[in-house]
Amino acid sequence: MAYKITVIPGDGIGQEITDSAVEVLKAADKKFNLGLEFDYHDAGGTAYDKFGTPLPQETIDACKAADGVLFGAVGGDKWDKVDPAKRPEKAILGLRKALGLYANLRPVKVADALVEYSPLKPELVKGVDLVIVRELIGGIYFGEKCESEQHNGAERAWDLENYSVPEVERIANLAFETAKLRRGKVTSVDKSNVLATSRLWRRTVAKVAENYPEVECNNLYVDNCAMQIAVNPTQFDVIVTGNLFGDILSDEAAVVGGSIGMLPSASIGECTSLYEPIHGSAPDIAGQGIANPIGTILSAAMLLRYSLHEEAAADAIEAAVDKALGEGYRTPDLWKEGFTKVNTSEITKIISERV
Amino acid sequence: MAYKITVIPGDGIGQEITDSAVEVLKAADKKFNLGLEFDYHDAGGTAYDKFGTPLPQETIDACKAADGVLFGAVGGDKWDKVDPAKRPEKAILGLRKALGLYANLRPVKVADALVEYSPLKPELVKGVDLVIVRELIGGIYFGEKCESEQHNGAERAWDLENYSVPEVERIANLAFETAKLRRGKVTSVDKSNVLATSRLWRRTVAKVAENYPEVECNNLYVDNCAMQIAVNPTQFDVIVTGNLFGDILSDEAAVVGGSIGMLPSASIGECTSLYEPIHGSAPDIAGQGIANPIGTILSAAMLLRYSLHEEAAADAIEAAVDKALGEGYRTPDLWKEGFTKVNTSEITKIISERV
Ligand SMILES: CC(C)[C@H](C(=O)O)[C@@H](O)C(=O)O
Ligand SMILES: CC(C)[C@H](C(=O)O)[C@@H](O)C(=O)O
Repeated sequence: MAYKITVIPGDGIGQEITDSAVEVLKAADKKFNLGLEFDYHDAGGTAYDKFGTPLPQETIDACKAADGVLFGAVGGDKWDKVDPAKRPEKAILGLRKALGLYANLRPVKVADALVEYSPLKPELVKGVDLVIVRELIGGIYFGEKCESEQHNGAERAWDLENYSVPEVERIANLAFETAKLRRGKVTSVDKSNVLATSRLWRRTVAKVAENYPEVECNNLYVDNCAMQIAVNPTQFDVIVTGNLFGDILSDEAAVVGGSIGMLPSASIGECTSLYEPIHGSAPDIAGQGIANPIGTILSAAMLLRYSLHEEAAADAIEAAVDKALGEGYRTPDLWKEGFTKVNTSEITKIISERV
Repeated sequence: MAYKITVIPGDGIGQEITDSAVEVLKAADKKFNLGLEFDYHDAGGTAYDKFGTPLPQETIDACKAADGVLFGAVGGDKWDKVDPAKRPEKAILGLRKALGLYANLRPVKVADALVEYSPLKPELVKGVDLVIVRELIGGIYFGEKCESEQHNGAERAWDLENYSVPEVERIANLAFETAKLRRGKVTSVDKSNVLATSRLWRRTVAKVAENYPEVECNNLYVDNCAMQIAVNPTQFDVIVTGNLFGDILSDEAAVVGGSIGMLPSASIGECTSLYEPIHGSAPDIAGQGIANPIGTILSAAMLLRYSLHEEAAADAIEAAVDKALGEGYRTPDLWKEGFTKVNTSEITKIISERV
């Protein structure tokens, strides 16, 4: 039996980085006899240019039929003037909703060799190993909204932040399960001193926590968490939070970890899950063959682990990345005096050989 | 004619730090003949314990009648079990609304001597000089909310994020006016790729910007801004944003700047304005005489500048703080080998003498 992986390169550097990850997956396939099959589909600006929509139904269907989805990146100034409903980002939001990708997992792990890339002082960032579990298809992102209405004699717009108990239970359960496999600590982030939605969030997480007596659970306000990520990121194991706070905090945590070119993510769905690097489509360097593919390669490793349960192959890819970095190979975004500068295809080859 | 300053010490270290700031204000009064008069009122947990409410009407009235309000800090675990509607924080939210404090100004300026206190690498934080202009009485903080309702067969809670054009115009105007007196750059932060409220925000800011051709204006998504504050904070001059994003970003920017004990804030109202340090009530060190009063002292300087237009006195206080720090005096929160450790009353005396 073969595994079907749907690949969505998207826009900008998306093509290069997914090509690179697929090459590494093929190396793993050869070694571990996984039986991987790849099919390619469009999304984002590229899809808009071809089909007039950033998310063709055919792409959604292919994802639903796949064992895992590998996603590159979408977006670019080129589509800034397009009708908001058809902008490249809509492909991401649309896929999340269509595939029911309810949780975004963002590990931020700082390898000792990469401590220097963090904007934080080395002593603060050494040993950081956290994962943000962000709710991805609820909250204010998908609540009712109004672009413009008259209200008390003025024009206003609004968006409804909202969470239901089952939505919070589902994401909290995933966070606690994740913590059980890690250091056993969950930090739930909300703004319950101001928001009713956060109060429901907090009391629901507390109830779920009762089922996990072995996991330590604490609560932080989102403003405090934004501070703590910058001053003491090693305190965190699993951070669980809603869609909007997760968007902000996971990007902050990502930069604190150093190069965002290195970081993978998994968006977990009920049937299929989707894996993508956390960085964007970087139209400024697209097509030059210098993009850092490691975030995408590590996303591919997450796909093997979480969707295909091919632990050994996932481990092999992660070890190969560590090895290549340990040997001093660096793409231009990370290159410094004393290291070997390599481009996208060179680092891909180096990592593939080490799988 | 005398100036009337209402002082609200609040809870925890609030008493000590406002005492300290008043002592410095009195030194400035003596030197510049300002004619300051102080009256004291309760708010927060202290007010709750005395009067059963965190914000007595009498406190509101006193603030309204004052030329400026100096606020300490409120809150503490002691009141964790109190009915949410009567928690200490309600005093802050209530005062903001009652006094119409529509804008929170949070300057983050890193003196060269204090660069080492930042969690960021010195080269990233040297020269940081930004101010966050946060909308303070609108948005999701004061939108309609629902603690619990049945919806599609489940319990849910919700909060309404919303902004009107006049609300955005008012805060945007203040941001552009602020930028004119500084380096002439405004960064407006929203999440317009997802939220309708942000789209109204962005188009309204763009219109206001047309009246300020001499001010450069750009837009950032909130997730990107959270990254930029951590990797490149010197790029910012004035950041303008809504209530919730401002809460998160201003705390992040504060820690990036180093000790949060040092940072002042001004909450600007139509009639009275309120000045407070950005840190909390620190119940763990309350009453020990070791709290850092500098954030409150610099808040008092902002009061002199913005509410009383006593520029010279404000400058004198700020210079006195710089001088005391330059001479190596440090409260325990900032003390390191090689500096002179002083407590709250000692640093207060040192600063007062230098005014
Ligand atoms: C592109 C945008 C809609 C998206 C989000 O806000 O979720 C992105 O920032 C992310 O975090 O994946
Ligand atoms: C105490 C709380 C309600 C308040 C807020 O969220 O505005 C605080 O965090 C602040 O920033 O002043």
